[in-house]
Amino acid sequence: MEKCDIIVIGGSAAGIPAAITAKRHYPGRNVLLVRKEEKVPIPCGIPYVFGTVDGVDKNIIPDGVLSNNGIDLVVDEVKSIDRIARTILTARSDTFSYEKLILATGSVPLQPPISGINKKNVIFARKEVPYLNEILVKMGTENIKDVIILGGGFIGVEFADEFRKRGLNPTIIEMLPHCLLLAFEEELCKEAEKKLIERGIHLITNAKLEEILGDEFVTGVKLSDGRELKTDLLLVGIGVYPETTLAEEAGLEVDRKGGIIVDNHQRTSDKHIFACGDCSSKRSFFTGQPSMMKLASIATTEARIAGANLFKTYRENLGVIGVFSTAIDGLVLATAGLSENKARESGFQAVCGIAEAPDRHPGGMPGMSKMMVKLVFNKNTGEIIGGQARGGPSVGELVNTISACIQKKMTANDIATFQLGTHPAVTASPIAYQLVNAAELAIKNMKCG
Amino acid sequence: MEKCDIIVIGGSAAGIPAAITAKRHYPGRNVLLVRKEEKVPIPCGIPYVFGTVDGVDKNIIPDGVLSNNGIDLVVDEVKSIDRIARTILTARSDTFSYEKLILATGSVPLQPPISGINKKNVIFARKEVPYLNEILVKMGTENIKDVIILGGGFIGVEFADEFRKRGLNPTIIEMLPHCLLLAFEEELCKEAEKKLIERGIHLITNAKLEEILGDEFVTGVKLSDGRELKTDLLLVGIGVYPETTLAEEAGLEVDRKGGIIVDNHQRTSDKHIFACGDCSSKRSFFTGQPSMMKLASIATTEARIAGANLFKTYRENLGVIGVFSTAIDGLVLATAGLSENKARESGFQAVCGIAEAPDRHPGGMPGMSKMMVKLVFNKNTGEIIGGQARGGPSVGELVNTISACIQKKMTANDIATFQLGTHPAVTASPIAYQLVNAAELAIKNMKCG
Repeated sequence: MEKCDIIVIGGSAAGIPAAITAKRHYPGRNVLLVRKEEKVPIPCGIPYVFGTVDGVDKNIIPDGVLSNNGIDLVVDEVKSIDRIARTILTARSDTFSYEKLILATGSVPLQPPISGINKKNVIFARKEVPYLNEILVKMGTENIKDVIILGGGFIGVEFADEFRKRGLNPTIIEMLPHCLLLAFEEELCKEAEKKLIERGIHLITNAKLEEILGDEFVTGVKLSDGRELKTDLLLVGIGVYPETTLAEEAGLEVDRKGGIIVDNHQRTSDKHIFACGDCSSKRSFFTGQPSMMKLASIATTEARIAGANLFKTYRENLGVIGVFSTAIDGLVLATAGLSENKARESGFQAVCGIAEAPDRHPGGMPGMSKMMVKLVFNKNTGEIIGGQARGGPSVGELVNTISACIQKKMTANDIATFQLGTHPAVTASPIAYQLVNAAELAIKNMKCG
Repeated sequence: MEKCDIIVIGGSAAGIPAAITAKRHYPGRNVLLVRKEEKVPIPCGIPYVFGTVDGVDKNIIPDGVLSNNGIDLVVDEVKSIDRIARTILTARSDTFSYEKLILATGSVPLQPPISGINKKNVIFARKEVPYLNEILVKMGTENIKDVIILGGGFIGVEFADEFRKRGLNPTIIEMLPHCLLLAFEEELCKEAEKKLIERGIHLITNAKLEEILGDEFVTGVKLSDGRELKTDLLLVGIGVYPETTLAEEAGLEVDRKGGIIVDNHQRTSDKHIFACGDCSSKRSFFTGQPSMMKLASIATTEARIAGANLFKTYRENLGVIGVFSTAIDGLVLATAGLSENKARESGFQAVCGIAEAPDRHPGGMPGMSKMMVKLVFNKNTGEIIGGQARGGPSVGELVNTISACIQKKMTANDIATFQLGTHPAVTASPIAYQLVNAAELAIKNMKCG
């Protein structure tokens, strides 16, 4: 048996920063990361190995990130946790003892209970290098042309865009009235859909898949309205569920849908075991209610909380804001916190402001895109509870400014007097700066409303 | 005499948002903006009319920004203010009465007392369309090849880069050991200088200009170490001084160097007169001491405070943080708050963290630049007091996230658990996200230091 101070199970977006943070905060302790995968793909990069990036090997998290930070690595599958002895047992029958354990076991793609789901060429966005390579080989050798993507969330949309770049003929089937509707305001969803259609991607919304057709291989799908569509491949991207088997078997408190139950210090029902990332439960920053959001960025934040809190409580999880971006052929959409609709559904009296301007000044500067910012405020407190943006690549960083405003509960007035930096080559002019003007217009709307 | 509720004098980065904010906050009042210029150039865009942007006319603030917001415009020069009658008198002998007056009279380029400063082809970055057009005509018709730029601040550096794009042969003369040293850490200044030299721009640092040579026209300069350099044109870009003539003549309290004295509500020594932008005094966010920073972005923030506070105090100026970016041939540098050196000079015990990573993930995604973030913390409070970044275009927005952190006095721990959004096509990975890792490394340094 090998004695360890800190063991992290899982080597992706939660496991890695959990281990690094643990080592940074407790440099005198040894930290072991145990993962079952030989190589770990960058999770958010998975759609891009099918088009923009040349193959799965170009989308690997380098193990140097562990060794450079003094973290030991064992590639092996953990089969069980003995909470009394404080040990873990692996598939190769090795035992490691721990003082503190972090579970970062992630999530698994949802397999809907549809007839035919196990047919060949029905694929999932699994975070596994051999699986992804198999799909790439399949695409290179079999005669695959038509592809149906079940689910028009950001995973489905990004895969569709990448499949198109390979010259395939993708169709997205989405249950809701629009793609991306769980994340973005309807107006942004419509812009995204326009772009997808321009790219030659077919959209079927308000549609439910009833049956997967074919014998051994998928050959088509049947929708609940009776329509049948032909396909050579079906990608199912309708979400993930938390991987909690180990935790359940060890007798930790688990909610099958939400994940391993943790408190706001990422501690499970066992005080020596922490959990973070997709496998762990979450609460909303805004309502305190359980949140089902699963994003790599959330995982890293939770990991940095868990890793720091192992032997002393330094950090608190204030709840999930939900910040992310997606990109379709140069059009970048980003969101932080609640959309206007979500805010209303959550019981807030929402007041919004929208501002649009070129993201360069003058507009003739190279690389210009029109950038739109919409901010959502709680009318009762004046505090920002959400923001969305659309534009060019710099939207990816702008949304983090919105997130900072949300985290610190800035009011519309705070944001209207935001001390901004601008430059002709990289932002809007300070007069037209979208964030500030959206706040000013929201103030105007609060007075009128 | 025409009766007005609100008059704004000045039509650039302070005057326009002051007028718009006044109208938004007091929609029942009429707002008149009086400026002397027929057309107003976008101030930060001025260097770019010499290269990237095709002429001065492509760098004009459209008057629609005023008319669309219900603001009246008079193009005329204000000659005097009668504070007792509350009227202004213009060059065309028109009189306008006001209830509240906002001075946004800006600044004027400094003319150093050097022998020969009045020779022909000694030029300044004046915010005047006819003047800038004259220079462009001169460059098109006279045989101008060698250009000396006095001052290696961001104005000087941007002009040098643009002159190079025109095929000219620019040389920067800077008094300090490095270009941009008043704004950036030495390591970033060195990177900028490397880029400037690669671009074919000559740098002479630690150098003082003693004399401007030539008869009617400048033909060269003499440095204090005796060196003589030949030139066809000399651009002087060593800073600006506040334009306070009107205010002084009206008997308002003025500091010649710092500007029209205002309180933290942008109110001058006359309670009916406000001032904002380059013409008005400023204090540091960090020390409360007078600040000499003059930036368009600061002007707009002050204008939004002044415009809102005219009839009721809504907003407070918390002091200048100082946020800005510059770009040299694709290399973007940005700063917010205090550099490490400035922090030490200001009496803070500064602790820093530096993180660098590709601004895409995986690094093979298109458009990748290496982005570096350095954060400066006050060791006694753990609060952030500064940050600098270097990378591609999205640095321009990232620095505003740093500014948000500074405005809300986030601690290193707050930033280490920042709820970030990331995407392969537009940011670093959430594991490598520079802002968060710089904070984590600063925490480590605080513990060691």
